[in-house]
Amino acid sequence: MTAVENATGPAPSFDPYERGCPSRDLLDRIGSKWAVLVLGELGRNGTSRFGELRKALAGVSEKMLTQTLRTLERDGLISRTLYPEVPPHVEYELTALGQTLREPLKALTEWSVLHIGEVLTAREAYDERTGHTR
Amino acid sequence: MTAVENATGPAPSFDPYERGCPSRDLLDRIGSKWAVLVLGELGRNGTSRFGELRKALAGVSEKMLTQTLRTLERDGLISRTLYPEVPPHVEYELTALGQTLREPLKALTEWSVLHIGEVLTAREAYDERTGHTR
Repeated sequence: MTAVENATGPAPSFDPYERGCPSRDLLDRIGSKWAVLVLGELGRNGTSRFGELRKALAGVSEKMLTQTLRTLERDGLISRTLYPEVPPHVEYELTALGQTLREPLKALTEWSVLHIGEVLTAREAYDERTGHTR
Repeated sequence: MTAVENATGPAPSFDPYERGCPSRDLLDRIGSKWAVLVLGELGRNGTSRFGELRKALAGVSEKMLTQTLRTLERDGLISRTLYPEVPPHVEYELTALGQTLREPLKALTEWSVLHIGEVLTAREAYDERTGHTR
């Protein structure tokens, strides 16, 4: 059984279990750490500038953040607004579509924070059991 | 503001917005497409063999599936049981910890199926607007 459980509405013809289905790559993109963190930050703040995002996502490179923002904008999840003031500045915010991702990504982020302790313990046990070192 | 909203329970010292926090990489791993699809399939089926998973995740390579299963086992999300029958076989299933990820990942998977149409439309508009071709 490969269909997504409980998909509602007009029968979707997309299925991430199918080879080459664009929903598969979308799934990968929306679950990547930088996308999750950018969308989470914009969800909390409403709007952010590039520099604010870069500071919030400690350690992200300028290149990676630029690329993440461009992909999110291209996918219609965030919008980019140029304010031609002096000096000009750019603000990012969630689109209506991006807003619909807030809850699922918040649940994922919270899961990672709440369960990382158990995961680290499991990893240690696995490494002892298998003689794995790294 | 970088703390995760509404994190409950004993104040967690983990924050994926912090550089080097292990919850950041965990977030990345649990949101990767193969992990999401393997966990989703095991969530629906209870247990699966390697060959069944390989068939369900159309197009996944043997190497990638092996690596995904090993990482998920190491992180304590799935268990691997060897049945020493003739011929011997291995079955994978979700652990109790893995079960707690079912709902968040189901929401993410459903989102990608339900909204891929809007994303594709947005992408087309972006490419027209920017002269982007690919």
